[in-house]
This record gives sequence, C-alpha cells and structure tokens, in this order.
Amino acid sequence: MTRFTDGRVPDAGVRALFAVDHRWQRWLDVEAALALAEAEVGVVPDEAARAIASAARVSHLDTERVQRGILATSHPLMALVTELSAAAGEPHGGWVHWGATTQNITQTGDLLVLKEAHRIFLGYLGKVLAASARLAAQGADLPMAGRTHGQHAVPITFGFKVAAWIDELLRHVERLQEVEKRVFAAMTGGAVGNFASLGAEGPAVQADVARRLGLASMAVPSRAVVDSIAEYVGILGLIAATGGMIGGEVFTLMKYEFGEVEEPAPAGTIGSSTMPHKRNPQLADDCITISAQLRGLVPLALESMLHDHEVDGAHSALLDETLEQACVLTGDLLARLQVILEGLIVHPDRMRANLDLTGGLISSELVMLTLGRVIGRQVAHEVVYDAAQSVHGGGSFAAALGADPRVAGRLSEAELAQLLDPASHTGLSAQIAREAADRARATAALLA
Amino acid sequence: MTRFTDGRVPDAGVRALFAVDHRWQRWLDVEAALALAEAEVGVVPDEAARAIASAARVSHLDTERVQRGILATSHPLMALVTELSAAAGEPHGGWVHWGATTQNITQTGDLLVLKEAHRIFLGYLGKVLAASARLAAQGADLPMAGRTHGQHAVPITFGFKVAAWIDELLRHVERLQEVEKRVFAAMTGGAVGNFASLGAEGPAVQADVARRLGLASMAVPSRAVVDSIAEYVGILGLIAATGGMIGGEVFTLMKYEFGEVEEPAPAGTIGSSTMPHKRNPQLADDCITISAQLRGLVPLALESMLHDHEVDGAHSALLDETLEQACVLTGDLLARLQVILEGLIVHPDRMRANLDLTGGLISSELVMLTLGRVIGRQVAHEVVYDAAQSVHGGGSFAAALGADPRVAGRLSEAELAQLLDPASHTGLSAQIAREAADRARATAALLA
Amino acid sequence: MTRFTDGRVPDAGVRALFAVDHRWQRWLDVEAALALAEAEVGVVPDEAARAIASAARVSHLDTERVQRGILATSHPLMALVTELSAAAGEPHGGWVHWGATTQNITQTGDLLVLKEAHRIFLGYLGKVLAASARLAAQGADLPMAGRTHGQHAVPITFGFKVAAWIDELLRHVERLQEVEKRVFAAMTGGAVGNFASLGAEGPAVQADVARRLGLASMAVPSRAVVDSIAEYVGILGLIAATGGMIGGEVFTLMKYEFGEVEEPAPAGTIGSSTMPHKRNPQLADDCITISAQLRGLVPLALESMLHDHEVDGAHSALLDETLEQACVLTGDLLARLQVILEGLIVHPDRMRANLDLTGGLISSELVMLTLGRVIGRQVAHEVVYDAAQSVHGGGSFAAALGADPRVAGRLSEAELAQLLDPASHTGLSAQIAREAADRARATAALLA
Amino acid sequence: MTRFTDGRVPDAGVRALFAVDHRWQRWLDVEAALALAEAEVGVVPDEAARAIASAARVSHLDTERVQRGILATSHPLMALVTELSAAAGEPHGGWVHWGATTQNITQTGDLLVLKEAHRIFLGYLGKVLAASARLAAQGADLPMAGRTHGQHAVPITFGFKVAAWIDELLRHVERLQEVEKRVFAAMTGGAVGNFASLGAEGPAVQADVARRLGLASMAVPSRAVVDSIAEYVGILGLIAATGGMIGGEVFTLMKYEFGEVEEPAPAGTIGSSTMPHKRNPQLADDCITISAQLRGLVPLALESMLHDHEVDGAHSALLDETLEQACVLTGDLLARLQVILEGLIVHPDRMRANLDLTGGLISSELVMLTLGRVIGRQVAHEVVYDAAQSVHGGGSFAAALGADPRVAGRLSEAELAQLLDPASHTGLSAQIAREAADRARATAALLA
Repeated sequence: MTRFTDGRVPDAGVRALFAVDHRWQRWLDVEAALALAEAEVGVVPDEAARAIASAARVSHLDTERVQRGILATSHPLMALVTELSAAAGEPHGGWVHWGATTQNITQTGDLLVLKEAHRIFLGYLGKVLAASARLAAQGADLPMAGRTHGQHAVPITFGFKVAAWIDELLRHVERLQEVEKRVFAAMTGGAVGNFASLGAEGPAVQADVARRLGLASMAVPSRAVVDSIAEYVGILGLIAATGGMIGGEVFTLMKYEFGEVEEPAPAGTIGSSTMPHKRNPQLADDCITISAQLRGLVPLALESMLHDHEVDGAHSALLDETLEQACVLTGDLLARLQVILEGLIVHPDRMRANLDLTGGLISSELVMLTLGRVIGRQVAHEVVYDAAQSVHGGGSFAAALGADPRVAGRLSEAELAQLLDPASHTGLSAQIAREAADRARATAALLA
Repeated sequence: MTRFTDGRVPDAGVRALFAVDHRWQRWLDVEAALALAEAEVGVVPDEAARAIASAARVSHLDTERVQRGILATSHPLMALVTELSAAAGEPHGGWVHWGATTQNITQTGDLLVLKEAHRIFLGYLGKVLAASARLAAQGADLPMAGRTHGQHAVPITFGFKVAAWIDELLRHVERLQEVEKRVFAAMTGGAVGNFASLGAEGPAVQADVARRLGLASMAVPSRAVVDSIAEYVGILGLIAATGGMIGGEVFTLMKYEFGEVEEPAPAGTIGSSTMPHKRNPQLADDCITISAQLRGLVPLALESMLHDHEVDGAHSALLDETLEQACVLTGDLLARLQVILEGLIVHPDRMRANLDLTGGLISSELVMLTLGRVIGRQVAHEVVYDAAQSVHGGGSFAAALGADPRVAGRLSEAELAQLLDPASHTGLSAQIAREAADRARATAALLA
Repeated sequence: MTRFTDGRVPDAGVRALFAVDHRWQRWLDVEAALALAEAEVGVVPDEAARAIASAARVSHLDTERVQRGILATSHPLMALVTELSAAAGEPHGGWVHWGATTQNITQTGDLLVLKEAHRIFLGYLGKVLAASARLAAQGADLPMAGRTHGQHAVPITFGFKVAAWIDELLRHVERLQEVEKRVFAAMTGGAVGNFASLGAEGPAVQADVARRLGLASMAVPSRAVVDSIAEYVGILGLIAATGGMIGGEVFTLMKYEFGEVEEPAPAGTIGSSTMPHKRNPQLADDCITISAQLRGLVPLALESMLHDHEVDGAHSALLDETLEQACVLTGDLLARLQVILEGLIVHPDRMRANLDLTGGLISSELVMLTLGRVIGRQVAHEVVYDAAQSVHGGGSFAAALGADPRVAGRLSEAELAQLLDPASHTGLSAQIAREAADRARATAALLA
Repeated sequence: MTRFTDGRVPDAGVRALFAVDHRWQRWLDVEAALALAEAEVGVVPDEAARAIASAARVSHLDTERVQRGILATSHPLMALVTELSAAAGEPHGGWVHWGATTQNITQTGDLLVLKEAHRIFLGYLGKVLAASARLAAQGADLPMAGRTHGQHAVPITFGFKVAAWIDELLRHVERLQEVEKRVFAAMTGGAVGNFASLGAEGPAVQADVARRLGLASMAVPSRAVVDSIAEYVGILGLIAATGGMIGGEVFTLMKYEFGEVEEPAPAGTIGSSTMPHKRNPQLADDCITISAQLRGLVPLALESMLHDHEVDGAHSALLDETLEQACVLTGDLLARLQVILEGLIVHPDRMRANLDLTGGLISSELVMLTLGRVIGRQVAHEVVYDAAQSVHGGGSFAAALGADPRVAGRLSEAELAQLLDPASHTGLSAQIAREAADRARATAALLA
C-alpha cells in the first residue's frame, strides 16, 4: 500500500512488473535468447544454449543466494549469472552470458518490462478514452460557462470541455505508438557496444536476440545511447500533464462554489478526521500530486543521457530508477483517471446556475459582433466594454447596453434578450464534442 | 551580445525570429489570412479582406504607438489590432480580427515563427551530422580506449565514439520531423475554441487560414490544448542532452591528462586573465551550460499544459516564454556544436598512448573469453579477475596471467602478447563508424 | 518592456542593476579596491593604486572598444582590464588586476550588484508586509469560508488567511538576513583560490578589499565554492512559492463563482480582444508565471555547484545567468505583489454568501465536538458524518441532525441553530490576524 | 536492498525512520502529547489523557486492522485514531484526537521523525568532516595540479582541494542548525489552523504539546504554511550538490589518465561481468546519481507550498513524499561519502607526474607576474601568452620564453627554471588546508 486512496482504485499492476523477481525473469529471458542466438551462429554449443534456456527461470534459482551474492560482489548481475550457470550445469554453464556485458542483459530485459508496462498504459488510455467519449457524448449539448483566465468567457457545453481532454489523450496514444520503433530495441553489443567479443557475428546475434524477444535491434549498440528511453519518460511526462490538468479541473469544479462535477466517492469514504461532512476530491488530489512527481522525473531522464565516455554507472542508475518510478506513477495516475472519469457525477443545474452568474456578460462577444456588423468591430468593442465595465460592481448589463445611444436603434430589447441568453449560443461545442467522442471510441476500440 | 564567446560562433538567427517586430509580422500574417479566409466564406467583405491583407505589414504601422498602446491597455495584441484597423482604413478596419481571440493570432503566428526556427534547427543538424560523418569516417580505424564508469573497458576507435553521437542526432531529426504534423497547426476557434463567433463556417475558415499559412488545422481548437508545443520543447531538451554530452566529452578529452581532442581556438583567444597559457574549452563549456538551461525548461513546458478551465494567461505566458528561450538556446547550442565538430582537432598519438596506460588490462575481456572457451566463462572470469586485481597497484598483467597455472599451458606467451595488444581488437568499431557516417551523410544531404 | 502588464506595475529596478554598464562599474569597483588594498601591503605602488582607482569609472572608458575586445578575445574581462590600464596611464596601468583572476573581479563585483538587488528585495518585502498588515487588520473580523482540499472546512476570517501569508513573508525576510553573512563575501584568492600570486599577503589583501566593499572575506576563496550563492537563489525560490501561492489565491477568489476579492484594474485595462467584459487577473497571472519560472531556476543553481576540479566555466556561467534571471524575476514578482496587495478589493457580501453555501455543513466539526462532549468524539463523528452525507445531494443539514435520535434530547433546535451559524465561530482567527499584522508592521518599519 | 552497493556501505538508518510503524509511533506520540496538554487546561479529563498516553504505543495496537481501516476509509489517520480509542478504552477513547485535524498529528509527528533524521544527518556530517580533516591535514603539503576549465591552472596541494569541500560542508552544518528554529515546530491549530475547536485555550495547548515533544510552536498554525519544510529540503539539495561534486571529483581523479585518488574497494568487489579487471568508482557513481535525484526533489518541495486556500491534499502529499524521499537519499549519500572519504587512497606519485605534464605551462602566471613587476602586467601577459601558445603543439616552454628578447636579460635561466618548478609555488594551499582541517575537526567534535 502506498497511498491511502489505494482502497478506492484497482492496482494498475506496474509495481509488480518492476518487482525484483519479475525483472530478473526478464533478464534471464535475455540470457536465454542470447545463448540461443549465439548457438545459431555457432558461437555457443547448441546443447549449452538449450540447457541455459531451460534453466533460465527465476523459479529454478535460489534467489536468496542471488541477493547475498549481490551484496558480496557489489554487482547487480554477476550473482544471477553465477546462479544461472550453476542451474545450467557443467559444462553448459560456462557459456552463460557469453560476450555480453551486464547492461546488455539488464537494459534489454528492462525494456521487456517496459513493453509490458507500455501495454498496460495503452490499455488504460483506451479505457480513459472510452469513459471520456461517454462524457463528451452525453454532455455534448449540456451548456456551461466557458472560462478563460478564471473568468467567464463565452458559453460552452460540458462535452466540449471533455473534447479537449480527448484530443490530448489521443495524441498521447499516437506518441506512445510512434516511439515504439525507437525504444523497444535489443542491445547486445558487449562491453562498450562495438561487438568486441562477438566480432563479425555480433550484429547477427543481436538481431536474432531481438527477433526472439520481439524487439528491434540497435544500430549503434552503445551503452551510452539511451535517448529513446529518455524520450519515453518525456511522453509519460506529457501524459502526466494532461492527467494533472484533468485532476485539477475536477478538483476545481467540485468546489462548493462551482458544484458542477464530483468525483465518485464510495460509501464509507472519510474526508476528514475532524469535519464529518467533508467529501474531498481525493483522487483528483492524487492526480495533481502524481502529475507533479512524474513531470519532475523528466529532467532526470534527460540528465541521464549525459554519459561520460562510453557509459557510466551514475547515469545508468539514474535512468533505471527514473524509468521505474515514472512507470509506477503513470500506472497510478491512469488508474485514478479511469475511476474518476467512469464515475464522474455531473450537475447540469449548477452548470446552468453558474452560467447565469454574470447576468449576460458572458454574451458580450456575441453582442459586440452583432453590433460590429453594423457599427464596426472596434467601435462595438468600445461600446460593449463601456457597458460591461459600468456594471462591474452590480447593475444590469442589458439595461446598460440599452441605455447606450450607439446600441439603441440597432438592437431591440427582444433581440438583446435573445443575445444575452447564454444557453442559446454555444457555437460548435456540440459538434466538436461528438466528433471527439467518435475519435475516442474508435481509438479505444483499437486499444481494447 | 549574450556570451563572451559570441565572436567565435556565427549567430544562429533565432533571436531575430523572436524579436518583437518579427513576431508582430507573423501575427499580422495571421490577421491577413483570417480576413481572407473569412471573405472566402462571406463573413467579411472581399474588399475589406484585401485592404486588411495589404495593410498587414509591420513596416506600414506605427510600432511606437503600438508599444504605448500595450502599456496603456495592458493587453498584448489590442493595440496592434487597432493600428492595423487604422491602416486598413474605414470601413474595412472594422473587419480586422473578426471572430478571433488574441491567442488565435498570437499562437498561430508564433507557430509560424517556430516553423522558421525549426528549419534553422534542421539545417544545423544537417551540418552537425555532416561534420560528424567526416569525423566518424576519418576516425573509423583510429584506436583509442573505450571507457566505462571512467575506467578503461575495451579498445574502440574514435569513429565508433562519434557513431554514437550520430545515432542520437539522427533520431532527433526523425523526432523533429514526426512532430511537425502535430505542432504546426492553426487555431482560430475563437474565445474558447468552440467557434462561438464564426459558427458553422468556423472549421472551414480555420482550414483555409491553415492552408494559406502552410499549417495543419487543429481538431479541437481549444486554447488550453498545447501539448504538442510542450512536446516540441521536450524534443529540444533531448537535443540539449546530446549536445551537452558531446560538449562534456570534448571538455574531458581536451584535458591535459587525456589530450585526445581539442576544440578549435582561433588565434587571439584568451583563456585566462592571469594564466597566459590557458586554452580553455570555451565552446564545450557553452554547450554544457546551454544544455543545462535548455533541459531546465522542459518541466516548465510540461507545467504550462496545466491550464485552468478553457485557458489561463499564467500558463500561456509560461509556455510562450519557455518556447522562445528554448529556441534561442537551441540555436546557440547547435551553432556551437557545428564549430566544435567542424574544427575538432584529433590527436592519435595521445589516444594510442592512453590506450597503453593499463599495460594490457584493457584486454582482459578478450583474455577471459579466449580462456573461457577452454575452461569456461565463469572460471575464466575468476582467473583474469585475480590477475588483474593483483597488479592493481603496479606490476605486469602479462606476467601475472602467465604465472597462473590455469593459464599456463592454455595460452602461449606469444598468444598472450597478441591478445594484450589493444589496437588489434577493436571489434566492429570501424564498421559501425562507417555505417553511421553513411547514414549521417544521407540525412545531411536531405537537410541541406 | 517585457510583459504586457508593465504599464500597470512600476519597474523594480533590478534589470538596470544587471545591465552590462552597471555590472562593469561594479567590476571596476573591485579592481579599484584590489589595487588600493595591494598598495596598503606594498604589493602595488601607491601612486599606481590611486591612478587605477581614479580611472575605474565606466564613464571614463570606451565601452564600445571593450565590447569589440570581448568578441576578439572571447574573454569576458580582459578587454575591460586593458581599457582600465590605458585609462590609468603608464606606468600605473601595468598594476591593474595584479594577482587576480577574472572570476575574482566578476564574482565579487556581481555580489555587489546582488547586494543592491538584495536591498530592493527587502524594501519590497517591507511594502508587501505593510500592505498585508493592513489587509489582515481590516479583515481580522471579516468572516469567510475556510477551505481545505477545495471544500468548505470551518469558518475563518479574511484576516486569518492573510496572516498565513504574513507568516511566510516574515520568514523570508529572516532568511534573506541570515544568508547575508554567508553570501556577501569577497573572493580574491587568485587563479584557483590559494593566493598563488599574492602569497602570504593574500588574506590581508582580500580582507582589505572586503572591508572597502562592505563585504565579508571568504575563508577558502576557491572559485568552485559557490554554495551560498546557490542558497540565495533557493531563498528566492521560496519567495517565488509564496508569491505564486498568493497570486493563485487571488486568481481563484476573483472567479465569478467566488467573487470574494479582486486585484485592482485601472480604467482602460483590456482583458480580451474579443470579449469586452473581461477583467482578467492579469497580475495574479503574472505572479503564477513568474513563480514557476523562478522556482525552475533553483535546480540550475544547485547544479552550478557541481564544478569540475577547481572551477569550470560551464558551471560558472550557469550560476551567473541563473542568478541574474532569478533576481530580475524576483523584482518583477515583488512589484506585482505590492500592487495587488495595496489595491486589493475585498467583497464581504460574497464572502458571507459563500459561507452560507453549505447550509451549515461548514459547522460540522463544532456540532461534532459539542455532541462529542456528551456521547464521545468517535460516535459523534459517525452521527454527524451520517447526517452530512445524507444531505449531500440536497436537503437540510439541521433537519437531518435533528432527526437523529442520538442528537435529539442532547441539543435543542435553538442550540443547533446557534452551532450552525458559521459567522459566530471563527475560532481565534481575529486574534491571529491582529498578531500577524503587528509583526508585519514591526518588520516593515525596520525595512522602510 | 535498494542499491547493489549496499553491501559496501552501512545503512544510514533513515529508511527505518520512515517505515510506517515508526511514523505511526510518532503520530501516536503527538496524540498522547495532545491529550495530556488538553488535560492540563481542562479540556480533556485527566484520567482520559493518562489512558490515551499509556495506550499510544504501536505495539499495543492491531496494525493490520489499521491497514485495513485505511483502505476501507480512504483516510490516512482515522483508522489509527479508532484503534487508539479502542485501546484507551471507554469512556477515555472518546477524547482521543480532540480538536485536532489529521494533519496536526501527521505533520507534527513527521517533524519528530525528521528531527531524528536530522540528528543522523548531523552525525554523518561530523564523520564526513572528520575524515575530510584528516585528508586535508595529510595532504596539506602534497602538490598536485590545480585545474580550471579542465585545464592545468596553477599548482595546489591536495589538502587545498579538500579544504574547499570542508568549507561547503561546514556551511551545511550551519544551515541545518539555523533552520532548526523554523522547521521543528508543532502545529495543532485544528482544521484550518485558527483553533476553531479549542478556542482560547488553543495556543496554550499547542505550546504545551510543543514543549512535551521538544518542538517550537507555530505562530500561525495554518496547514498551508510549510515553507520551512520546503526550506529544509532545499538545504538537503545543497548537501546533495556538494556530495555530487565530491563524488564527481573522485570519479574523475580515479580515471586511469589521472590516477590520483581511488575510492576504497573491498576484496571481492566486481566491477564488470565481462571485464574482470574493472574497478569501478561505484560509490562515487552512487553519489552522482543520488545527488541528481535529491536535487531533483527541491522543485517539488517548492511546488508543494502552492496550496489552494487553507490547504489541499495534493500539495500536502507532494511534500510528505518529497521529504521522505529526500531524507532517505540524504542518508544514502552521506553514508557513501563517509566510506569514500575515510578510505580514500591517494597517489602522490601520479599527482606529481601529472603536475609535470605541461612542461612548466602551469607556472605561466608566476612567470608573468615576475616579469610583470619589471615590464608591466599587460605586456608580460602578452609575452607569456606568445611563448605558451607557440609550444601548444609541443616544444619547450622554457626555451620559448628564453628566446623572447623581452624575457632575456630580465630572467636568468636558473631563475626561469626555479619559476617553472610547480611544486615550489603552491601559494597558501597548505595554510588554507590546515585551517580548514582545524575548523572541520572543531565542528566534528561538537557533532560527535
């Protein structure tokens, strides 16, 4: 358990992927693929490769001895290699890890882990998109105040607001899919990446390892080349920003002063130990927190590219830990977004009440443009500006407009009343909401 | 002048793009395209649109009055619109900025600026790749120490080192090109992005504005949707990391203790006011500084996505300023990389001397694998480990190996001597270097 | 001009301090102090020192030639030294910059600039505290909703809210004053800080330079030791956080849905080019933007401590530029805070109206504790929790409480009504507000 | 186990402080102190307070039930309060947590945890200072190259280098001690900090809680006021920068090309799975990694000050998690610094060999100043500049100088030879080293 809200949100399953046993299994998968690929080109005896591949299961190994070995050697992999060698038996064990350096195994294995996390992320994005599609479609015609700089701007519909979320989320899916070809690549170039030990067979071995593991093969398998992993963390940072923005919007719209939406709260949820009435936006809070933490990892990922010479452990470790933290946080974030969006409670009455808060000021642009067709846009801006500012402290906007000689004669009281009804002019909000919902559903279907 | 090294490096031309007059011109270009597009669908009279388009030149306007107007109104665009209206003349001026909100003009215009900067970046990347290709090709067979964790690992060639730089740089080109479709998109959806004022004609108008300006058209033209601009800054952050890494490598290899490369220094350059002999890695220093500053902007770009409701000025301003700073820094960085790489001085003799520093320890992997084929990899690791650690404080590695009974009889002295000659086993360094050079040249040709 | 709001806010004067001519003057001040201090111990002839000190005025020098010299030498100071030498005349000029390295002059001079900025910051903090004191005192008894997690919690007064701002601001003053002894220290230890050129006289010279410039003297004048400057930037980051928090609170409370406060807006201010009614929280927006930018500089300041060996230019430049940017942003931020707080418009009626929004739920803690004295705190929490959650969708909290058998008989209807009147129980809000106002006034008086 | 080097470094004990059971105990300590303090002023019955205080031991509670309660309520503290109430027994349990809000307990309790961590940090800094003092004293007269911008500058001694580390470390101790009065403060102001529930007795209760727990008492106990905790994280960030700088220096000086120092490596440590000779700077690597991670937390701490209204959970959680991570990383960092510095192996022979690398160029300042006394500083700079640059590609600096007519006649060959002996002019390196060692020892003694 890591957050007190964990009881309200299903676990995304990302932590388990980075648990040491699971990572070791993926590292062993790489050792197995390496041995088999080396057998293919005759570097390692067939029998040895088969023995290694068959032994390469965490469940076959003494993991406590591995842990002790790590502490004794101060090395992250050597003890696992030793254990695998023993499990493969003599004389096969001697061929374990042939021509490979530690990072070949750990980085390639961790990319297998990342690929599993990647599938989880895409799955969640699909569910989040599906829930957003429902909200956008259902709210396509639901009027509410559009707000810029915190102030009422022009009327929108709730579906239009959600359409903007969908638009960002769809691009995140596109980004995650575009980066696949760059990031999921096997690296078995040896100590520094020049196939020093495997020589001419090196590229073929790496290509075969890649094929066996469902990965691409790095063109320059240098251990210092990690830009695509940093790029991946950057995409997670973009997802974090969207998630934090949505969380922030829910947080705000859930305030009593707004009352327009609410995150779902199961019975029994306690908001405060001292204020029994409290229903806090706990999951929205989580999204904001996680967003900040996840975005805060992006500079570390970028910094981890600054390797000294052909690689250094300081930057490798920085990237490894940053990637793990970023993935775990992304899982937690997306799981919360799903719960929020699938259960979001919408209050049309409060939306309508808020829309009327400004007594028609929210329609000032429409009045200006209608007037502007007759008296010119800039003059119209002045007319409406004067009327609006005159009622800033109170008073009727309609009356102030009607009293202006530049308006009178051009707009009847009835015309003015119609212009000042916010729900009647939400532009293309509904159309944009429906189109976004369609796109979201289509992508969600592909990701299901 | 902003850096004391500016005399050594041509100006990249990015600062000029973000100068206020140039930005205003691009904003005026958008106002012109908007008027023409609106005339196309009959929203604005043809004659007015032509008058506006013809007046929309900074050189036609009184820019000092615009500056004063900005201070008087505390608004970034209104004064320019007023000035443009005046220049278009009555009654046309009244149609300026019809149905648009400020950010429609400024964001779309700034994306035109960004597109110009983008072309500069790709041009520089082409030159940097071309210079790298020469270095990689010329150094393909030039042996030097490969170093991991700061320690000699296995021999490489200088070309291999450069190949890793090329590999990252090529992916940056790919990233910049992939993001084009997302980032260069016109937005004229009005106050909040729902075409409140243009209504049904809105999407067609936006599409036509986009066509006229050579941009795509945003699907959801919400002002709060800026993820692709943030993504762009993230790609610049990746470029910054590569640039900082290259700068750091040159900085280090230029130390007297290494002496392997030198950045070019024109006659008259002064390193120190008190130490006349100093030749400082000034441009490499710049790369490291700029890299840190540029990477430090990425979190701000991500944070700028966290808009309140349909947009807020705090986050818009944050992104605008972040983007400008990021572009200027990228120009400065790439210009410096070009000068460094085109003029890089390489010292093969020092590379060779350093390669011999460890008395053959750098060949330990080769010895281990050669032995390993006979006595098994893990035992061989122990044998070589013992010999290597025994001479850590001094002594001959060859002798220590020869003295080990597990070696004697398996490797003759001559075989051992051959194994311990580092220049003879650089793996596929040369091949990888040449392939990378070829790829770099091909891309550079496309970018020229 | 750098922000479109600059017309609304007096310039803080920090940019001018960092203008190149002003920095050069401070550098010349250090050269003068150095020559005089060296004359004091007999290293430099008295006459030469006097000639140098007298020539060390920017107005005496040909600054265009200095600019050209910088470009020609790629060195930040040498050209200024040459110009100063010429101005001092032969044979005195030969003693300019004796035994000093560039950074001795530039860092010590820049600290003089920082000290000027520091006085500006403290002056502004005094004014901001004075304005806050007025707000806290005037609002000490003005009831409003206290909100946690965006939800109504318990009633407070507006003065209590401001007291929390004052509390942070007072500590920032304390921090700025505590760091003075560490940060304002002269460094003239020469090329690496070991007084290589001045030898045994070195510490005395540095102490005398420090005395003449009103600074402390560094114990280890290594050029790589810049932790106190980084610390200073960190304190500015803390100020940024407070400023961003206040800006954010004003931004939120100014929303139509809240309507509790407003930042002042002079007549003629335009909020939107398309929505004439808009009154945007422009200065609050600025505070949020600047806060993010300023906080974003703190990691760069920390990174700039990571010098290679005895100093490197990459990290020096990073710190120099970071410090300048941080100071300029701090000036802009504090100037805006002053305008906001001195002109803040408060709306007691909206505060009261919002306080009643929850129909008494905001008093749930008081009901619980009153009940708790009779039936125990935990049971009372359950009772009130049940009643509050039952009216979450609507309904009377008072009625729900009254209907609970665990309440009936313990609290009369009148007692309950009294408990549910939020304005009657604001705790010690007023007392805390008045105490904070007193403290703020006292410190403001010292800073005036 | 979290780092593969953990077997080489004693655990700092910070993780254990933040383990959930330990944090709960400190929270219970606050509940106990609160009840006792409330009894003191008559708010809570004496007997109840004694019962609560006596029950407030984690070992008395069913922690699994607490865990389940957290998941069921989605609340971090309520379940613990319930459990404590049960343990206190009826009717006392009803007085648990009287008038307090969750954060009163968790923040005050976590500050008790921080205080324990603080003592650990100061203890480690004492040990690190003691080890540094030994290095500075032993190396006070040990000559080596002083390097700026990666290039040889002037000779120093090893002790001088360490003196710069000591200087920073001593200020970190000062900072940690100065912040104590601000950060270690109890907060029991209730739901929003205005003593809504305790009323007039509130401040006295808080003061008594503070006294019982060895803390100060917050003047404005608002839950949104966390600047001093953010400041604390900032100080850890400064420590991180120094630690990363020292780690980086060891990393570099341990390279074969330098060979001047080595971090200790116990027998059995494995550097590489494929290169048996590798002795990697594993702990220095760790310091660099941890430094980056720890510095990367500072912006999050600053961001956590940006509370919405009187507090919000998003920012509270951000600070809580940031503080915990920062403390754990600080422990890991300081533990590594201690091991590195206590066991640092120094190679005077390599220092001397490197000092001679430049054939006397490192003495250029001394030559210039000696000449400068006769021919003026600026002319001397030119003379030495010309000679130094002429031998940049090879050749004897002494010969080049001797051949210059401006030198000949002013400096004899013997004088020149003396000037060019780097070991003979290390300035006040030794004195500065010894003074720093003395200061370090004095502070270490106080911290022991």
